[in-house]
Amino acid sequence: MIISLDAMGGDHAPDVTVHGAVWAARDFGLTVQLVGNPDAIAAELEKHNTAGLDVPIVPASEVIEMDEHPSQAVKAKKDASMNVAVRQVKTGKSQAFVTAGNSGGALAAALFGLGRIRGIKRPALSTIFPTQSEHGFAFLLDVGANTDVKPEFLAQFGMMGSLYAEKVLGIPNPRVGIVSTGEEDGKGSKLVIEAAELMKAAPYNFIGNVEGKDITAGLADVVVTDGFTGNVIIKFAEGLSKMLMSAIESEIRARPLAMVGGLLAKPAFRGVKAKLDYREFGGGALLGVDGVTIITHGRSDAYTIRNAIRAARDAVENDILGAIKAGLTNSE
Amino acid sequence: MIISLDAMGGDHAPDVTVHGAVWAARDFGLTVQLVGNPDAIAAELEKHNTAGLDVPIVPASEVIEMDEHPSQAVKAKKDASMNVAVRQVKTGKSQAFVTAGNSGGALAAALFGLGRIRGIKRPALSTIFPTQSEHGFAFLLDVGANTDVKPEFLAQFGMMGSLYAEKVLGIPNPRVGIVSTGEEDGKGSKLVIEAAELMKAAPYNFIGNVEGKDITAGLADVVVTDGFTGNVIIKFAEGLSKMLMSAIESEIRARPLAMVGGLLAKPAFRGVKAKLDYREFGGGALLGVDGVTIITHGRSDAYTIRNAIRAARDAVENDILGAIKAGLTNSE
Repeated sequence: MIISLDAMGGDHAPDVTVHGAVWAARDFGLTVQLVGNPDAIAAELEKHNTAGLDVPIVPASEVIEMDEHPSQAVKAKKDASMNVAVRQVKTGKSQAFVTAGNSGGALAAALFGLGRIRGIKRPALSTIFPTQSEHGFAFLLDVGANTDVKPEFLAQFGMMGSLYAEKVLGIPNPRVGIVSTGEEDGKGSKLVIEAAELMKAAPYNFIGNVEGKDITAGLADVVVTDGFTGNVIIKFAEGLSKMLMSAIESEIRARPLAMVGGLLAKPAFRGVKAKLDYREFGGGALLGVDGVTIITHGRSDAYTIRNAIRAARDAVENDILGAIKAGLTNSE
Repeated sequence: MIISLDAMGGDHAPDVTVHGAVWAARDFGLTVQLVGNPDAIAAELEKHNTAGLDVPIVPASEVIEMDEHPSQAVKAKKDASMNVAVRQVKTGKSQAFVTAGNSGGALAAALFGLGRIRGIKRPALSTIFPTQSEHGFAFLLDVGANTDVKPEFLAQFGMMGSLYAEKVLGIPNPRVGIVSTGEEDGKGSKLVIEAAELMKAAPYNFIGNVEGKDITAGLADVVVTDGFTGNVIIKFAEGLSKMLMSAIESEIRARPLAMVGGLLAKPAFRGVKAKLDYREFGGGALLGVDGVTIITHGRSDAYTIRNAIRAARDAVENDILGAIKAGLTNSE
């Protein structure tokens, strides 16, 4: 299997991207194409032992910067590393595209370069989110690809999410919920009420509305929402976790005995942080485009990049594209 | 000052409501009318020392139950404690209405019974939310009164929120932000982009978009959003805090040394919980109806009820209704 990594994408590229690619190539026996500035990539590769690994460089002369206007930059910079990596997939030279770059740019590059799967109304960006469920996580989508949606988009997000949770994450008969303001049928915005009606008739295990607190409780395996709400949720989760952790630290620091306790409890805190760490999951799949695409956080470190490449492998290996295409035929 | 408390509203009424009313009457020197079943209330009052306190019973023969359809129940049960409490305010026999009952019912009772302030398009339910800002909290609205809104509603929520933060919470020149998916101008849903345009021209200190993580960071003193997003945020916050705390507990329990540490650090954890405790804030004001209305959590305990009554007093004392009416004249 061959994965094309945008080696120039992310806050710490090509340092962490090359490191992550080498790590993934070693751990998973994959070919990881490093797409970008050949000199910069080669300089990073020299820092690693790549004996026996397949990490070829694919040259690209431009980069979509983090602060550029996504779709304009993607259109203007034809030879940007993202665009080149996408073309590798489009032309069959690789099976998946992974990037930690400008996420709006990544969306645009994948959408323009790979196109939507025929029958998919809108692609959705997903993420894996820690919960208190048995398997410890839920699959949340859309987290930002579409800020304005229609009920039928949400119903399709449910279908794609259900297939991903089952085929790629290995959850049998995943429970699909829609984010709303009350558990009861008919609660929520007009959009959600109409979407829930469509989802009841859809060929997946729709369990109805989930409230904000049900998401973390793990009531649903697949949590469907619009890209506005989903984006607010994941960024709010980041902010709230940070606030809670810093509140605990400052309360502990304010009390001498608690400080001793805090030192003893430190490995436990590290355990919690690891459990809730987005780095473990390695970024989110962009579902609905005609090519496996994984978009990960701009702040990703090498370990996250490694895991994002693993996520791409899992999606390819379990043929998520074929499953979505078959899912569309079934729901016609 | 006279406050009308729905003594029958909430999961633990009239036990905690009567207790909270007695507490508030003693601490703040207020008259608190206990509206509801006279026998049940009298039985609770006997458990407390009410010497020198003014806690009269106002009879009401019906109750809106927690699982009833809000607006239907409010219309059908004219003599429900909520409706009677609202009529006390409407007829000038008291200055504020406080309830921990069915929150949809409370909204309907206040809206039908008190009406909107002339010129207010939609009332908004607010809450006070802990943040990392200097004063330690932000004022968030709407958290559930309106799941479907228009840009001009959001702009008005900003006005009402700004006035409440300044007059009642004592924050000078409060910074008003709107929840969106990016900090930059023009990011977000169509609704938010249009609302932000109106808010730029509004006579309050609009600072632009705030992302999910900016809410807890405390970038804005007043955080404006639609009732769908706001409701998801506060319920998600509840769920995520619970998940984090229980993750910390189970990690600590899994390690013998950390367990000793956890015991020593226990007062610090209690400190964090108190800091983030919604009970301190005592429920949210319903802004835009023509009477001071405080709606608090159905799970409220006596302390929360006491604080909700204090919030009502603060709103009356600082004439929030007059401020909103004047604000409407200024923005015409």
